[in-house]
Amino acid sequence: MVITVVGIGLIGGSLSIALQEKGLATHVIGVENDAAHAAKAIELGLVQECLPLEDAIQKSSLIIIATPINAAEQLLPLILDKLSNQVVFDVGSTKSKIVEAVQNHPKRGRFVATHPMWGTENSGPSAAVKGAFSKKATVICDKTDSDADALVLVEKLYALLEMHIIYMESTAHDMHVAYISHISHITSFALANTVLEKEREEDAIFELASGGFESTVRLAKSNAAMWVPIFMQNRENILDVLNEHISQLRKFKSCLEKENYEYLQELIENANGIRRILK
Amino acid sequence: MVITVVGIGLIGGSLSIALQEKGLATHVIGVENDAAHAAKAIELGLVQECLPLEDAIQKSSLIIIATPINAAEQLLPLILDKLSNQVVFDVGSTKSKIVEAVQNHPKRGRFVATHPMWGTENSGPSAAVKGAFSKKATVICDKTDSDADALVLVEKLYALLEMHIIYMESTAHDMHVAYISHISHITSFALANTVLEKEREEDAIFELASGGFESTVRLAKSNAAMWVPIFMQNRENILDVLNEHISQLRKFKSCLEKENYEYLQELIENANGIRRILK
Repeated sequence: MVITVVGIGLIGGSLSIALQEKGLATHVIGVENDAAHAAKAIELGLVQECLPLEDAIQKSSLIIIATPINAAEQLLPLILDKLSNQVVFDVGSTKSKIVEAVQNHPKRGRFVATHPMWGTENSGPSAAVKGAFSKKATVICDKTDSDADALVLVEKLYALLEMHIIYMESTAHDMHVAYISHISHITSFALANTVLEKEREEDAIFELASGGFESTVRLAKSNAAMWVPIFMQNRENILDVLNEHISQLRKFKSCLEKENYEYLQELIENANGIRRILK
Repeated sequence: MVITVVGIGLIGGSLSIALQEKGLATHVIGVENDAAHAAKAIELGLVQECLPLEDAIQKSSLIIIATPINAAEQLLPLILDKLSNQVVFDVGSTKSKIVEAVQNHPKRGRFVATHPMWGTENSGPSAAVKGAFSKKATVICDKTDSDADALVLVEKLYALLEMHIIYMESTAHDMHVAYISHISHITSFALANTVLEKEREEDAIFELASGGFESTVRLAKSNAAMWVPIFMQNRENILDVLNEHISQLRKFKSCLEKENYEYLQELIENANGIRRILK
């Protein structure tokens, strides 16, 4: 099957590797604005060629949109306009806006809204890795709005990648990812800024930083071009969670200020409850 | 060399494994309040026997204090009282209070204040692991207050564990670890409480939680008995950093509220600067 991947970065590139490895993609066409990324993607074997969007669509049976989500939302209606009967799916971190953007499009059924729950703090074609999605979850949103054959194709693709499929409404998805993913990124960015602001002795950070710090701050390396649109599109859910998070931090602050160590212990023991959920 | 480890948990147990493996410890005596932990430590081969503190001290050339830091601060003067000419060091996460506690003790020179920068979110003897400290940093504080021979012994021990030694004043140490370690734990506890408070659909967390969430929240599994005393002893430094962290989070909140995405991008790009420090 000839597959087009629009946006050959971390996710698009890693998908491309996996689909070629599994034999589903016999030829992958990249669509990529950034000429250096396009060249790199070909050099790394992520794609066999790069073409303009229209040519790529015409030659493909399946189109995957793996750009930042603001671009995806703009591209999707244009891609649907050009489709004959192919299938297109996206892999963006929010789903409500992109689904809204094509709600009344006559070809809406050819589109499947998805979100594979995998990523790293790196970006660009060089960040693409082998074996990326295996054993992770992927979300398919509003599945009844997709044509049956389009849905089946995308389900087969994710099953081939050994992913576990979860079905959700796009609005529920966006609320859950605010808790599970987006707030972790904001916390991590803010923590990096805290340390960079207050800790002038960067050598001390470098030498002392232990595993705990690295794992909490790792996400702060994430790319603004990807994350600003996510924060824009999921603004209300994220504000909700962020307000709660700040008020939780204030409880810790108040315990320390008042030297109320019994309550501090309670707060920590309550947090330990995350063990119920994460092994 | 016969070595006593007081407190056979994650750190004490892992040290004991390493010191036996490297051949420095020919016999390890555990001192452990918790009978179940004592039995487990013997069963796992972390120690050869468990004895009361006084007997253990008498039989040992080196005593390592690996209890929570509030207990360490109380134990250290008692241990120094009983010493003939042996060496004792601690491995606690804060250093100012323990150093103050023995400032004028006639045997102060036999004590070396240290902090190996390694840990996990688990606790107790079953959490002890092989190869724990290798390639990590360890801090030795106020080294001129230790006798030359005591310092040399502890330096050799850490070199044998393949650790990189950093020397610091105990007050500087406590300030740095507030940034590098303690704030990450508070953030992680608060984030776990946020999610547990707001996200009632625990199944959704479990299914969706991706690598980013797990790495940010991992520290929230950490033990209250270890962390409350750390937060007590390093209260002022932590409050300082926590205030800055909350104000950094408020900047993100304000960007979202005002839809000021240019500034949001700046905040993220600034946070990306952590790449300069953490590879």
